[in-house]
Amino acid sequence: MLIIGERINTVRKSIAWAVEKKDVETIQKEAVNQVKAGADVLDVNVGTPLKEAENMSWAVKVIQEVLNIPLCIDSPDPETIKAGFRVSRDKRRTWANSITLEKERIEGVLPLVKKYNCPLIALCIDDKGIPSTPKKRVEVARTTIKAVSDFGIPLDNLYIDCLIEPVSVGQGKAQETLATIKMMKKTFPQIKTVVCLSAVSFGLPGRRLINRTFLPLLVEAGVDALFLDPLDETIMATLKAANILLDKDESCLKYISAYREGRLKI
Amino acid sequence: MLIIGERINTVRKSIAWAVEKKDVETIQKEAVNQVKAGADVLDVNVGTPLKEAENMSWAVKVIQEVLNIPLCIDSPDPETIKAGFRVSRDKRRTWANSITLEKERIEGVLPLVKKYNCPLIALCIDDKGIPSTPKKRVEVARTTIKAVSDFGIPLDNLYIDCLIEPVSVGQGKAQETLATIKMMKKTFPQIKTVVCLSAVSFGLPGRRLINRTFLPLLVEAGVDALFLDPLDETIMATLKAANILLDKDESCLKYISAYREGRLKI
Repeated sequence: MLIIGERINTVRKSIAWAVEKKDVETIQKEAVNQVKAGADVLDVNVGTPLKEAENMSWAVKVIQEVLNIPLCIDSPDPETIKAGFRVSRDKRRTWANSITLEKERIEGVLPLVKKYNCPLIALCIDDKGIPSTPKKRVEVARTTIKAVSDFGIPLDNLYIDCLIEPVSVGQGKAQETLATIKMMKKTFPQIKTVVCLSAVSFGLPGRRLINRTFLPLLVEAGVDALFLDPLDETIMATLKAANILLDKDESCLKYISAYREGRLKI
Repeated sequence: MLIIGERINTVRKSIAWAVEKKDVETIQKEAVNQVKAGADVLDVNVGTPLKEAENMSWAVKVIQEVLNIPLCIDSPDPETIKAGFRVSRDKRRTWANSITLEKERIEGVLPLVKKYNCPLIALCIDDKGIPSTPKKRVEVARTTIKAVSDFGIPLDNLYIDCLIEPVSVGQGKAQETLATIKMMKKTFPQIKTVVCLSAVSFGLPGRRLINRTFLPLLVEAGVDALFLDPLDETIMATLKAANILLDKDESCLKYISAYREGRLKI
């Protein structure tokens, strides 16, 4: 399971402010802390359309000054993704996040993914929004997979975002995501799946409790990568416990060593 | 999901001591606290063979002095179960815990269950111990179910203990339990399932973390009743969160009211 640190995102006020003011220290600190806490990849989302590409270049450079870790260039705008890749030191390990079936995004991002053979995230939404059933999401993914494959891109690096909707907006939303992941893995064994954990708790109190309770269910469903906040120690501890329960930590060795080193919030 | 409070059990030293010394206050306090914390049923296990039946009568009486809640008379010894029932005020709501395929236990306990039409727990073990695969556990359950049914007992009140083994003893143990519960529910839709949550973490540090991480997986598998420690607030909060994620709490109403009343450890 890959952990994509979600904290460098201008939906957070402190990050929006740091990007606006070009506050190098805040961005670097957020990056370093997430990696220390166990992130494998760092998402970088610099928000508003105004100067987005320019801000992305700045953020990527700033993070690279202190870390050598894969970055996930997160924008609906292909020009911003290109700007991130332009300054990225290790383009083959940089993630393009994301495409949909929109022509502009496909044509803007796929050439770059093909050139660098890098990971790509595709959201399984269509022009009507988020499909209402797991089956429909799989059908949208089928079209995306075909587009990616037709472009000559190998599917091993494709991550389908199976989409999490808040449980607060309607019944069965979390279960739809779990069913989508399972169906996606079964239908397309070659591709990988990803979701953004914290979306599940939007609009409710006790968000971290809900997020960490959802986590073992996602691991069991077989998700390959998760956007989450690695500084939430209870989430990271839950992930380690889920790994021993679901046979992803042989002889519980990682769990026990985390405990011994005081890295396990119990 | 029924919560069976597990704390009145002489594996705990304080309880063994209280039973030995006939310390009414300790037993009553444990009982009341568990009910306040959300237990639906209270397990009563008074341990050692020496004077077990006598101790069971005492404990049941003592708890009934302060509470009107279903008790779960927990013993491998039919005479102890009978002793508990003899003094039980509300025999129809009292649980008989447990039988196996052992002749003595079947013949000792089933007449009582038939007479009172009360809940019964059957462990799915045979004379070789815990069957190694979910399929074999279901086969043992099939024999038990036949024995119970042949005795003229309706199956609605039968809880099959699908058995949790510690993850520390071997790979895939937690997943075997999940698979057993799912297979059991599918094969015998009429019967119910139960497990003892805390067994999963035996032999490892951070037991509560492991227990609460396993909980949502058990809820998803469809378990009907759980032995757990209701005084562990993180377990109870996780259960409430699992219920909103798995569509067992309409419009998140119970979750939100627990939060508003300060009953949610987040």
